[in-house]
Amino acid sequence: MAIEIAVGIDIGGTNTVLGVVDREGNVIEEGAIRTTDFPVVEDFVKALSGVINDLSGKGDYNLRGIGIGAPNGNFHKGTIELAPNLEWKGIIPLAGMVEKSMGIPVFLTNDANAAALGEMMFGGATGMKDFIVLTLGTGLGSGIVVNGEVIYGHTGFAGEYGHIIMFPGGRDCGCGRQGCLETYVSATGIVRTVQWLLGEMRDESRLREIHTRDLTSRIIADAATNNDPIALEAFDYTAEILAYAIVNAIVVTSPEAIFLFGGLSNAGSLLFDPVRKYVDEFIQPVFKGTTSILPSGIPENNAAVLGSAALAWKEYSK
Amino acid sequence: MAIEIAVGIDIGGTNTVLGVVDREGNVIEEGAIRTTDFPVVEDFVKALSGVINDLSGKGDYNLRGIGIGAPNGNFHKGTIELAPNLEWKGIIPLAGMVEKSMGIPVFLTNDANAAALGEMMFGGATGMKDFIVLTLGTGLGSGIVVNGEVIYGHTGFAGEYGHIIMFPGGRDCGCGRQGCLETYVSATGIVRTVQWLLGEMRDESRLREIHTRDLTSRIIADAATNNDPIALEAFDYTAEILAYAIVNAIVVTSPEAIFLFGGLSNAGSLLFDPVRKYVDEFIQPVFKGTTSILPSGIPENNAAVLGSAALAWKEYSK
Repeated sequence: MAIEIAVGIDIGGTNTVLGVVDREGNVIEEGAIRTTDFPVVEDFVKALSGVINDLSGKGDYNLRGIGIGAPNGNFHKGTIELAPNLEWKGIIPLAGMVEKSMGIPVFLTNDANAAALGEMMFGGATGMKDFIVLTLGTGLGSGIVVNGEVIYGHTGFAGEYGHIIMFPGGRDCGCGRQGCLETYVSATGIVRTVQWLLGEMRDESRLREIHTRDLTSRIIADAATNNDPIALEAFDYTAEILAYAIVNAIVVTSPEAIFLFGGLSNAGSLLFDPVRKYVDEFIQPVFKGTTSILPSGIPENNAAVLGSAALAWKEYSK
Repeated sequence: MAIEIAVGIDIGGTNTVLGVVDREGNVIEEGAIRTTDFPVVEDFVKALSGVINDLSGKGDYNLRGIGIGAPNGNFHKGTIELAPNLEWKGIIPLAGMVEKSMGIPVFLTNDANAAALGEMMFGGATGMKDFIVLTLGTGLGSGIVVNGEVIYGHTGFAGEYGHIIMFPGGRDCGCGRQGCLETYVSATGIVRTVQWLLGEMRDESRLREIHTRDLTSRIIADAATNNDPIALEAFDYTAEILAYAIVNAIVVTSPEAIFLFGGLSNAGSLLFDPVRKYVDEFIQPVFKGTTSILPSGIPENNAAVLGSAALAWKEYSK
């Protein structure tokens, strides 16, 4: 009997990754093309369709839908809009183009919303109706699920916790404003924090030996594990700001859990312990103990493809 | 032919107001009892049921449902939980008690969520799927609608924008913490702001002649209308903080509109003009111009009853 499959696609600035995913979240086939090889989007759609046909023809598969995670993805319109890291400028109706080429339903959203759907269908949020996924990579992405549905909002661009302003007049943000959460809480945010602390503190630190251009959240985590005082302070500072964002998120949607995913969250207890401590300290009493702060239940290497495939499965099941 | 009706009930610390409301939002009958006359909740339910029977027997009515708005109301459980302004202590399963007494479905939520439902069914949010209502009274209440549904969250207590922490270590809040939005943006918040500004500024002001105990947001609005420098500064400061809260709310749920209701919002353009100016200035570019800041479309004197009735109609229609 044919296996029902969805194809999950993650479009990144450099690479586009594809996976054939069954209803249980097994990635059965995998493929990839270089996004940068196709400066013209029509050529990209042609190449992408070729790989989809190729992958979904490798077994006795019944293709039910295609999900795409993309930067600045608009779920309502199926468009990629003004994505700074892609060569295709303006508003690209990508879902429609792929749907036309493939003849089956195609759904598109941004990477963090896809991650939330992956968490709900195949990860730690199975059975939850209210939760949030925060992806702590170069920036901070978020997917917010309420009543079992991702919040897309009126515009299709909702769920941008990375761009809540934590400190008016604070750090310059890529969005053109200042003080956004992602300038503090992300893999690059903690590097900026270390740069600041190197000036603030007088403690000896192995981080002083590294050119700041070469600093990564991984190096900072390693230093913190070795009790480097500046690295420890950087994690504490990051955790405190994240905790304020989390307690403010809790009073808004009262989620059962908040999942931290990717990049900075790989620091494990270095991040989770102080975040949980500060959340307990800052939380409004009525919400105390009602939200778990958890690591993602999705393996990071497959997360993007699983999330996009989950979007296809969710819409197919409606 | 019998008219289909719902009964909307608003439970306040002093009075409980009831209204018979048809599907178009007309308040056909009205009634009230004093909440404080019934320190025992069983007696309250008995008296309340009497008034409901009385009102719904006044015409050829077909009673379809009962909606209750109450402080600390939990939609999921139909309970009032630890409400500081009511004499009934602990967790009161009020919806169940009234349902048992009346024999028809009873739904319960907090006042701000009810206000959002009233706005959606009978007010300015007709046809909107994503919007927020902020009630600016003694505190700041909020009802958040996403995908056409009020956000109740995992606990049933979601939608508390009044308790997002704007300034860690800021003003003491009734919730036991510091720096919550409602300590700045509410009818009492702007009084606190004037008290602070009377110390900060040296300008002459008629507000200096009034005992701070007697200050109200109405008096401050009147002074601002007469170009009182401290009153004007108080509105500007309040609007700036509210604008930061609003732009942060916009990136989260991307609403089509945010409605300001009650108390402080009655100051009209004194509040709306600077709020809109600051929102335009602070907003993330991708969301610019996508959210309208509007006065509520519900008459304030009927708002509580209409909101509670809307809850009953919404659940009945499911």
